[in-house]
Amino acid sequence: VRVDLLLAGYGHVGRRFVRLLGELNGELAILGIEPVVVGVVTARHGAIFDRAGLDANQIALRLAGSGINASTPPSTLEWVARLRSQGAEARLLVETTPLDVRSGEPAISHVRAAFEAGAHVISANKGPAAWAWNALQAEADRAGVSFLCEGAVMDGIPILSLVRETLPCAAVRGFRGVINSTTNYILTALERGEPFDDALARMQAAGVTEADVSHDLDGWDAAAKAAVLANALMSAGITPFDVAREGLGPEAAPRAAAALTAGHRLKLVARASRPSGPGGPVEAAVALEALPLDDPLAMLDGQANALELDTQPAGRIVITQRDGGLEKTAYALVADLVTVARRVAAGAGRTGR
Amino acid sequence: VRVDLLLAGYGHVGRRFVRLLGELNGELAILGIEPVVVGVVTARHGAIFDRAGLDANQIALRLAGSGINASTPPSTLEWVARLRSQGAEARLLVETTPLDVRSGEPAISHVRAAFEAGAHVISANKGPAAWAWNALQAEADRAGVSFLCEGAVMDGIPILSLVRETLPCAAVRGFRGVINSTTNYILTALERGEPFDDALARMQAAGVTEADVSHDLDGWDAAAKAAVLANALMSAGITPFDVAREGLGPEAAPRAAAALTAGHRLKLVARASRPSGPGGPVEAAVALEALPLDDPLAMLDGQANALELDTQPAGRIVITQRDGGLEKTAYALVADLVTVARRVAAGAGRTGR
Repeated sequence: VRVDLLLAGYGHVGRRFVRLLGELNGELAILGIEPVVVGVVTARHGAIFDRAGLDANQIALRLAGSGINASTPPSTLEWVARLRSQGAEARLLVETTPLDVRSGEPAISHVRAAFEAGAHVISANKGPAAWAWNALQAEADRAGVSFLCEGAVMDGIPILSLVRETLPCAAVRGFRGVINSTTNYILTALERGEPFDDALARMQAAGVTEADVSHDLDGWDAAAKAAVLANALMSAGITPFDVAREGLGPEAAPRAAAALTAGHRLKLVARASRPSGPGGPVEAAVALEALPLDDPLAMLDGQANALELDTQPAGRIVITQRDGGLEKTAYALVADLVTVARRVAAGAGRTGR
Repeated sequence: VRVDLLLAGYGHVGRRFVRLLGELNGELAILGIEPVVVGVVTARHGAIFDRAGLDANQIALRLAGSGINASTPPSTLEWVARLRSQGAEARLLVETTPLDVRSGEPAISHVRAAFEAGAHVISANKGPAAWAWNALQAEADRAGVSFLCEGAVMDGIPILSLVRETLPCAAVRGFRGVINSTTNYILTALERGEPFDDALARMQAAGVTEADVSHDLDGWDAAAKAAVLANALMSAGITPFDVAREGLGPEAAPRAAAALTAGHRLKLVARASRPSGPGGPVEAAVALEALPLDDPLAMLDGQANALELDTQPAGRIVITQRDGGLEKTAYALVADLVTVARRVAAGAGRTGR
């Protein structure tokens, strides 16, 4: 099945995704999937469209010389509509635009535009799933398309697909996880007595943190991810505003050191559960917790993330990502692409979450 | 889709599976799946068959009074053939007979009989996948049916389905894991200075170990599981004879204690890799290893199992089962049943591994 891809946003993740499509071309062909990048829309570097298909080099060259006024590019909606008018059967929007974590925009609008044009959406963006999961899934169902966002949490390792594809009929009663790398790095440094500002500066110098690190430190990144997980795995119907939130500042240093001395480790833990039982409301929180050393979340260092799912009847399952990074997030997009293509191949009506 | 189930073997796992089908009836109905247990074949307690369907109580009552000569029950082949002759559209053999771990029989013969009768097979048995994975998958492909055995390794948590369903286009370059609970219990006791025989006796008294514990202690159980994993995840085409094997005896006590003193933990680790690179032969081994405390496999106690997959491009992923037990293995059978039903619903030709 040929899948026509339109990329909204073309930053690090988008570029790595296009290269990865080339690297995995043989494996995708074995699955009968032919992804064709037919367009790229960016906010600042113009947009290009070519139904013959574009590779990474062509995109780089032609975006630079597209001549489209970068300040008013055609809207994503116009480009997806163009895709449909040209007869693309399987249309897919790959959404990786920069996120306003406090609103989920512009990603949510892009996702809706795609649905209106009958296009599936895969996204590495936390925004849509954190702020509007239930509404967007309902809209996708009505449009007969899929909305997937495996790359929104824990880079490339399967979390949403783990529950969706491999734990049928099971209920996720709750979860807890270490899902923000920056705070995890800093906590490890604080344990060792390194001053907060030094640790932060060292990480920024190494390129480990995002340009704007405040969303990591104030717990917003973890809260948005907790909302994604609660919405996708527990049908919570919450937003990041509903997640009780604790951040990480210099004042945590003595707590981190004291925890280690007492045989514990201080971690920023994201949690969700239904305290009043099945069917009750989901309560979610991000908070510093001192974990005993034999807790699977306690030993995580650096870029390692982990999530423990409390499932019924499969029990407690922990999935740990030992290596993070761009390539992994790009792989999550490939995995979502394969899911969409499989659904398209299996015929209409299979738009399940 | 109605799926007619024939159970070969009806021990603890088979019984728990039938009860779990009842408990998850609503969830299965939501997926459009109607499992109907139409027959049970046992080696020592006779056999029954009823296309109207059997629940756990009916099976218990009627097996006891089946009157079939228990020493010569009809063969599994005859029963599956009867299923076909009565017009069952989706036929499924649920294979949970006791295993001869050194040959994989009688499970392998049951699986083949089912294929000949056009029946899918799900199994909690290590035998078929450890001894004949490649041959059986080829035979399943030719018969247009599926062969799944998620419950063969690490009880109910998804391993084979994790790779098959959620890591498309990715290569598993190797794995290492702690996948035998009995030896893990004993090693923890040895670390603390408890004598080997006392630890073993305590576990047997608690009902934690299998009746015949020798397969755990001599490494055969772990070697068989390593073969299953290598065959299913890495297309190794090996048998348990090809797995280098170290067991656990009283002589390991000083090593376990010394490892702990040195800040390590001694674990029985199953490993596989392709030392000569992609495309080369798989080498697999089960051996005692002293792991540093920050290794995700080091902290596992008691019934916890874990497996680290070395994947490309998704990196190293660890999946940990914190709660083991019968119910989890029964759940693995339910998950495989759902996979078969989904494939049947998606139409013929989707027999993939």
